[in-house]
Amino acid sequence: MKQSRDFRWRPVTNTALAAVLVALASVVLHAQAQDKPPSKAEQAIKYRQSVYKVILWNFGPIAGMAQGKIPYDAADFARRAERVATMAPMLLEGYPEGSATGTTTRARPEIWEHKDEFTKLMKDMEGKAATLATISKDGDFEKSKAALLELADACKACHDKYRTD
Amino acid sequence: MKQSRDFRWRPVTNTALAAVLVALASVVLHAQAQDKPPSKAEQAIKYRQSVYKVILWNFGPIAGMAQGKIPYDAADFARRAERVATMAPMLLEGYPEGSATGTTTRARPEIWEHKDEFTKLMKDMEGKAATLATISKDGDFEKSKAALLELADACKACHDKYRTD
Repeated sequence: MKQSRDFRWRPVTNTALAAVLVALASVVLHAQAQDKPPSKAEQAIKYRQSVYKVILWNFGPIAGMAQGKIPYDAADFARRAERVATMAPMLLEGYPEGSATGTTTRARPEIWEHKDEFTKLMKDMEGKAATLATISKDGDFEKSKAALLELADACKACHDKYRTD
Repeated sequence: MKQSRDFRWRPVTNTALAAVLVALASVVLHAQAQDKPPSKAEQAIKYRQSVYKVILWNFGPIAGMAQGKIPYDAADFARRAERVATMAPMLLEGYPEGSATGTTTRARPEIWEHKDEFTKLMKDMEGKAATLATISKDGDFEKSKAALLELADACKACHDKYRTD
């Protein structure tokens, strides 16, 4: 019975999934304006740059609030902090072996020579992002700002060491 | 007291945050290989394309498992489904008014003419992604595959109508 259900599902799933995969992949390819499919290294580089971009999109308004450039909106601050905390742990897998070069990247080759330290810095940043997400839920501006500063320092620690200017 | 604490924090926060913002922004600018800063429309387009890329990065292995191309790993399936569910609600804000054209985009202008229906399709997809994340936690391959198919259909419904070929 289980087998026959499996048998009915698979062809449909395969077709629908394949269509979506082709569709999504074509967005990526199109955005890269290339005819040949990207290498695994290029995919990883584009992936990690995408994660950084989404983080920046959410980090920007938070930092703007902390700097007093835009009004503090506790709910929006917390929502974006939660997103940053969710995105942060997605970065590490964007640095597989062999992705030091490919498409344009500012990642230093030292990342792969000192992967343990790089990983430690990433984990530290993930922790600070998680703390910010937790703290900002309480809606205390000063505490949220202090936690954001901690996160910013953790970002900078890695940028200073493992990213080219 | 509150004031004086605020006074102590602000300059430090501003400097550190500004440094991180500049650093993050420069990644985006560098990736775009442009000298002038991107317009708000271009930023939105790059942002939504980044969200799609991160979704694809995680959707790929899940679809591969469902298709039997890679071995089913229940924990990894659930982790990636959770990420897709978190990313999905980030898409809508990537389609602000005025972002129909700019840098390369396959979004049809009809999105902004039928924003209500576009929003409905997005919300439907977000719901399917959330269901997939919940179901996949139980580690039932058949049920996860069925939920994935539902999500794939929801993706396709929007692509078919609001994306150029």
